Amino acid sequence: MNKLNVISIALLSTLSIGANASNEPIEIIPAAVITNPEKVELGKMLFFEPRLSKSGFISCNSCHNISTGGVDALPTSIGHNWQQGPINSPTVLNAEYGLAQFWDGRAKDLKEQAAGPIANPKEMGFTHDLAVDTVRSMPAYQARFADVYNSKDINIDMITDAIAEFEKTLVTPNAPFDLYLQGDKSAISDQAKAGYQLFKDKGCVSCHNGPAVGGTMYMKMGLVKPFHTNNPAEGRKGVTGKEADKFVFKVPTLRNIELTYPYFHDGSVWDLEEAVNTMADIQLGQKLSESEVKEMVAFLNSLTGEQPQIVLPILPPSNKNTPRPEPFAD
Amino acid sequence: MNKLNVISIALLSTLSIGANASNEPIEIIPAAVITNPEKVELGKMLFFEPRLSKSGFISCNSCHNISTGGVDALPTSIGHNWQQGPINSPTVLNAEYGLAQFWDGRAKDLKEQAAGPIANPKEMGFTHDLAVDTVRSMPAYQARFADVYNSKDINIDMITDAIAEFEKTLVTPNAPFDLYLQGDKSAISDQAKAGYQLFKDKGCVSCHNGPAVGGTMYMKMGLVKPFHTNNPAEGRKGVTGKEADKFVFKVPTLRNIELTYPYFHDGSVWDLEEAVNTMADIQLGQKLSESEVKEMVAFLNSLTGEQPQIVLPILPPSNKNTPRPEPFAD
Repeated sequence: MNKLNVISIALLSTLSIGANASNEPIEIIPAAVITNPEKVELGKMLFFEPRLSKSGFISCNSCHNISTGGVDALPTSIGHNWQQGPINSPTVLNAEYGLAQFWDGRAKDLKEQAAGPIANPKEMGFTHDLAVDTVRSMPAYQARFADVYNSKDINIDMITDAIAEFEKTLVTPNAPFDLYLQGDKSAISDQAKAGYQLFKDKGCVSCHNGPAVGGTMYMKMGLVKPFHTNNPAEGRKGVTGKEADKFVFKVPTLRNIELTYPYFHDGSVWDLEEAVNTMADIQLGQKLSESEVKEMVAFLNSLTGEQPQIVLPILPPSNKNTPRPEPFAD
Repeated sequence: MNKLNVISIALLSTLSIGANASNEPIEIIPAAVITNPEKVELGKMLFFEPRLSKSGFISCNSCHNISTGGVDALPTSIGHNWQQGPINSPTVLNAEYGLAQFWDGRAKDLKEQAAGPIANPKEMGFTHDLAVDTVRSMPAYQARFADVYNSKDINIDMITDAIAEFEKTLVTPNAPFDLYLQGDKSAISDQAKAGYQLFKDKGCVSCHNGPAVGGTMYMKMGLVKPFHTNNPAEGRKGVTGKEADKFVFKVPTLRNIELTYPYFHDGSVWDLEEAVNTMADIQLGQKLSESEVKEMVAFLNSLTGEQPQIVLPILPPSNKNTPRPEPFAD
C-alpha cells in the first residue's frame, strides 16, 4: 500500500467518526496503518512460505488465500498428506478485529493463532523447531530478523509475530457500505438499504456488529433451533470444558461474505440466501420472505471491500542447512 | 512491470546486441515486452486460479511457484489427492525460451503445455470441460474474455492462450551475468568469470547456450556414462517411440538455477556442486577439481535474474453455476 493511500484512508476514517457516532451498530473499517513496513514485509514472506510446512507445499496462504477472500473456499481445508480438516477455514481478512482467533477462540490473537497450523499434524504438519531451523538456515531471513527484532537469533515467537503483523494489514476498507456510512447515500442500492434496515430490525446486529460486522462475541450456533450438521466441533466447550459452551462459536465477520463461501463452521452452505434463511430460522426464530432475503443479501454484498494488493514475495533459496521438505515421508 | 522499466530494458537489450555479437554462446535475456496487458492480466488470474483443479486447491502457481524460482522445490510435485508426480517440475521462469515444453518436449509451446496439468489425473485432476464451465460461470471472467478475445464464448484454447501470455512475461532479466555481458566487468566475481571460462572450455555450452542457457535442444541424460535413477521417465522415447530417444530430455535452462533445486528430471540432487560434478562426469567424461566446481557454481549463481514482481490477482467469486470443488470425492 502506498503512503498516500494510507494517509488518505486515515483521513477518511477520521471523518468517519462522525458517521459512527450516529449510533449505527456497524462501524466503518479503516485501512491499515503500517508503522513497521520491514516487519510487515518479513511477515508477508513467512505468510507465503511453504517451507513452514513438512511438505514444503503448504503455506498460510494455501488455506487463507488472499486471491479468494482470505479463505480456501472449501467446506474444510486440505492439510498435510491431503488430510481433511475439521472445520471451515476462517478468513484472514480483517481477522485482527476478532476478540480471539479460531472458531472456538482458543488463540487470544493472530500471533498465537499463527503458531497453530504450522505444528498441527492435520494442517502444515511441521514442528516449531523445524520451522525455526528452516528460517534460521537462510542468510536473507537472518538479516531481516536481525533488522526487525534486533536479535541474532530467530525463534517461533518472532516468526508468528511477523506473520501477525502482516495479517493486521489485511483489512478491506471502502466497501460500498462504508461509503454509505460516510454519507454517500448512493453508494448502495435501495435494496441494500432495505436489507440493512432488516438486518437491524430482525436482530442480526445483536451479534454481527462493530467494524468487522462480527467477531466481537461468542454465540451458540442454533440458539432457538438446533443446527443440524455432521461436523463434530463443539466450539467453546473444547476450550472452557463447560457444557453450556457446547456449540458456542465466535460470531464470524460478515465483511467480504460474498467471497468467503461456503458458510458456517462446517462449510455446509454455499448459497448466501440459504445461509441468511438458516440464520434467521435457527438464531432468531424468524421466517423471511423471498424479497427480504434478497434485500439482506444485497446488503451483505455491499460489505465487500477493497481487497489487499499484495506483491508476491520472492523467497530466499534453501541451502545445505535447510531442513528438506518431506512431502511423502509421513 | 511499469512502462518505463519495459522501455529501459528494451534499450538495454538493444545495446546488448553488441555484446551478443561478440560470439558469446550465452545471450542476454531481454525483459518481457507486454503488448496486450489485458490478456496478461487475465492469464495471471488463471495462473493463480485454484478452481482450474478438481479440488479447488491446486493452481498453476502451486507447482510453478513464482515466489520460489517458478518451481515447487520438491523432487517431484504433489498432485490431486497428494499423488506423487512422475517428474521434477520445470521452472516457468523464462520457459518461453524452450524449443518445446515438458522435459520430453511433448507440448510444442506454453499454450499446449498449460492444457496438460489441468486434465492430468495426477496433477490438477480436472477436465477441460469443467475448467471451461468454471471460468464461464463467472461474469467477471466473461467480461474479460469478451474484451480480450472479442468472443461471447470461452473455451479451453482461450484459457490456455491467456495463461501462456502471462507466462511469457515471466522473464528474469538483469542477472549479474547479463550485466557482465553488457560490459560491466565488475558485475560478477573473478571466481564467476573463471567459472564461465570453464563452462565454455569444458563443453557445457554445447548444450547450455542461448538466452536461457539451455532449452534449445534435446540431449541424452547420461551421454558418456549412465545416469542412475529410480525414476522411470524415458524422455523423448515416449514422444517419438524411438529407442534412440530413450533418456533423451530437453536441456533445462540454467537461469535462476540457484533457486530451482532439486536438480535433474528426477529431482534427486539438492546441491548445485554435486549437480555440476555429476554433469561433468556423465555428460562430458570430465573430473573437475574442487576449486573448478566452486568457480562453476559461482558462475551459475550469477545467472539469477530479477524475479517477476507480481501483484496477486483478486479472483471473482463462484456462484450457483460454478462447478463445486471436490477435494475429497474419490
